[in-house]
Formats: sequence, C-alpha cells, structure tokens
Amino acid sequence: MKKKRFAVVLAGSGVYDGAEIHEAILTMLAIMRKGGEYVCFAPDIKQHHVINHITGEEMNESRNVLVESARIARGDIKPLSEFDGKDYDAIIFPGGFGAAKNLSTVALHGPDASVNSDVEEAVLQMVKLKKPIGALCIAPAFIAKVLGDVNVTIGTDAGTIGAIEAMGATHVETDHGDVVIDEDNLVFTTPCYMLDATIMDIDDGANNIIKAMFERM
Amino acid sequence: MKKKRFAVVLAGSGVYDGAEIHEAILTMLAIMRKGGEYVCFAPDIKQHHVINHITGEEMNESRNVLVESARIARGDIKPLSEFDGKDYDAIIFPGGFGAAKNLSTVALHGPDASVNSDVEEAVLQMVKLKKPIGALCIAPAFIAKVLGDVNVTIGTDAGTIGAIEAMGATHVETDHGDVVIDEDNLVFTTPCYMLDATIMDIDDGANNIIKAMFERM
Repeated sequence: MKKKRFAVVLAGSGVYDGAEIHEAILTMLAIMRKGGEYVCFAPDIKQHHVINHITGEEMNESRNVLVESARIARGDIKPLSEFDGKDYDAIIFPGGFGAAKNLSTVALHGPDASVNSDVEEAVLQMVKLKKPIGALCIAPAFIAKVLGDVNVTIGTDAGTIGAIEAMGATHVETDHGDVVIDEDNLVFTTPCYMLDATIMDIDDGANNIIKAMFERM
Repeated sequence: MKKKRFAVVLAGSGVYDGAEIHEAILTMLAIMRKGGEYVCFAPDIKQHHVINHITGEEMNESRNVLVESARIARGDIKPLSEFDGKDYDAIIFPGGFGAAKNLSTVALHGPDASVNSDVEEAVLQMVKLKKPIGALCIAPAFIAKVLGDVNVTIGTDAGTIGAIEAMGATHVETDHGDVVIDEDNLVFTTPCYMLDATIMDIDDGANNIIKAMFERM
C-alpha cells in the first residue's frame, strides 16, 4: 500500500519567532511511526522579526522563513507556493509564534489578522479536496481565520479563545493530548505548548492528532 | 526517589552549523520518558560560521552558539561555563556539525582538532566523578580527542574513523540504534545521523543510549 503523505508546514525555527521545534520534530516522528511519510514546506518570506530566545528581545537581524525552517528539515524543504493538494493525503501546521507572526498575523492583530496567501491557498485546497488539515498549539487560530465556521482548540487561553470566537469559529477547551475534530472541514487541532506542557505532552499531542488524521484518510 | 538529572550540551541549532535538531529533541524526550529530567547548556561563543540549510552555502552573518541553542531549549538554557558535574547524574552531547565546528574543530582539523575548554572541562569532570558521558553522531570524535584511550562509535564513516583512531581511541563499527559502552570511562556512543538514517532511527538511538546510561547511574 502506498504510504500516506503529509505536508508539514513550518514557520521558521524557534518558538518565539518561528515554528516550535519540539512540536515540529515530534509531528514528523509521529507521521513516520504510523507508517506515513512527510515533505516539509515553508513560505519563502522574511520573518516578522528575529527574537533572542534567551532574553526575549528583538535582534537587529533579518531572516527568511524558508531558510530557517530548513534547519528543522535538514535542508529537505520546498517553498509553500509549490504545494499542490493533489499530491498529499494531509497537511499539518505545527505551532510556535511563527504560526502567528509569519504564517499569519494572529499574534499582532487578533481577530483582524491576515493570513499568508500561500497558507490560505493550501488550507482551502485541502478543504475542497476533503483531505485532513491538522494544526497544533496556536496554529488553529489562523485556520479559524481562513474558514470562519469551524470547531478548533488552542487549550484554555482566554485571550486567544476570544479572538478565535470573534473570527466566527467555535472554541472547545482541552487538556494535554486532546484532539478536537471538525467533521465538516476535516480540521484536527490539539493544544500542545498553548498549555503549560512538557516535551512528553507534546509527544502525546502529536501522536494523538496524527492517529486521528490517519483514521480519516 | 530523586529524578536523575542530565546535562544536555547543545552546539547551536541546525545540522550544518549547530546541534542536529532531531538528535537534540529526541535525546531530551528519551530522558523524560525514562523518568529523568534535563538542563540544557551551550558554550557562550560565536558559531564557526552560519550555513544556509537549503543551499549549503555560508551566509554573511554571525550567530552565537548559546543564543541559537536556546531555540531548541525554548529559552531555558545555561552557559556551559556554569556546568558543575556535582549537580548532574550524567552529561550528553547530541551531534550535528556544531559538535565538530563549535564544540571542537574536528570537522576542520581531524585528529589535530582542538576542543572548546568548557567542553573539555565538563567531560573531564564527569570522568573524575565516574558519571556517564553520552555522545551521538559526530560528537564521539571530540570525546576521543579529550580522552585518547577510549572505545567509541560514529557508525561506519572511514574518514572519521581514521581521525578517531589517530587520536589514540578505538572505533567500533555500528548500525542504527547500536550503543557502544566504554566501561573504563563510562562513555556511551551511538551513530544516529552519521549513518543514512530516518527520524525513527534517531528516536531508537536516543532511547537506547539513554536506557544504557540509566543502567549505570
């Protein structure tokens, strides 16, 4: 049987300005553990900014989302503009502030956020093709922005829940490892580091969401 | 019972100029899975260089090993100069070119490599305290440089094996997930991405080396 192929969309490399690295790696591992394969993608755009991950301060530097995401992908990555839903069985977005600063502006503009056009196009393609869309941590917020009427979770953070509901979506509160499934749009979400979590919780969340996605493919 | 505490020493963030990210994350996960805890460290030094992970070309940038390693550690990291072996049950070094360009110069000078003084001091402290030292991928090469007469593995790469043996160490060829144990120095090594491996092989290697280290603590 042909292996199920996931597109894993990265947003840089590092929780404060890019993809959350634990979530990205453990998503990739979970896909392979279930017998699937993955191809990494990222938009070829400038990062919103660069954060010193020790101090939390902005650095006077400029980095590219695709180039930095390649660190997580060991160089094997494609620009998201080349994504074609026909070639994939599912798409998944790990979290990290990059999802809310680079893939979208949810961290900056809340319910009035914009979503990167390649990201929006990828999500809409998969909805049209009735193929599963996964989103971890804060990433469900931009799925809500694209789809409007959708059920998602980002855990329990009141501010983000407010923004998501102002976008027209329904938020479901969850604990570590829980997965919320929107049956109409085949959207799968899990809170990961939006809760106060350990790397073991992230491993559980990644395994649970990938398992749930496999069951609908 | 008090949790066993590992020091995880990072070398930046990205296989070509820093710590190999999959090896780092899966080592951290393996420690927690076994009921241990970890503290991340890195030397507070300039990276040897910055590599574009898509093209493999050097970039006209300067980055700091501690600051970039903080991306993997989600900001929770200490300078390696503060490491005190008395406070830890074990130390482990994930691989990636950073181990051979930043923590040491093995990638540049082979058997004539130098080793960062904080790294050397940390290894020697643990040998003196008879506490386990782990090294993945290319990292065993600088352990050989520090200790000389020690049994290690980096897999099967002939050039690196030649350099390790020229340092006075004994190399043992290994396959995915194998762990070589030097009983005299309590040094544990496994090849990871020095072989043509998948992220599943790295998970196996990380679990196996951490399990072996726990058995000697």
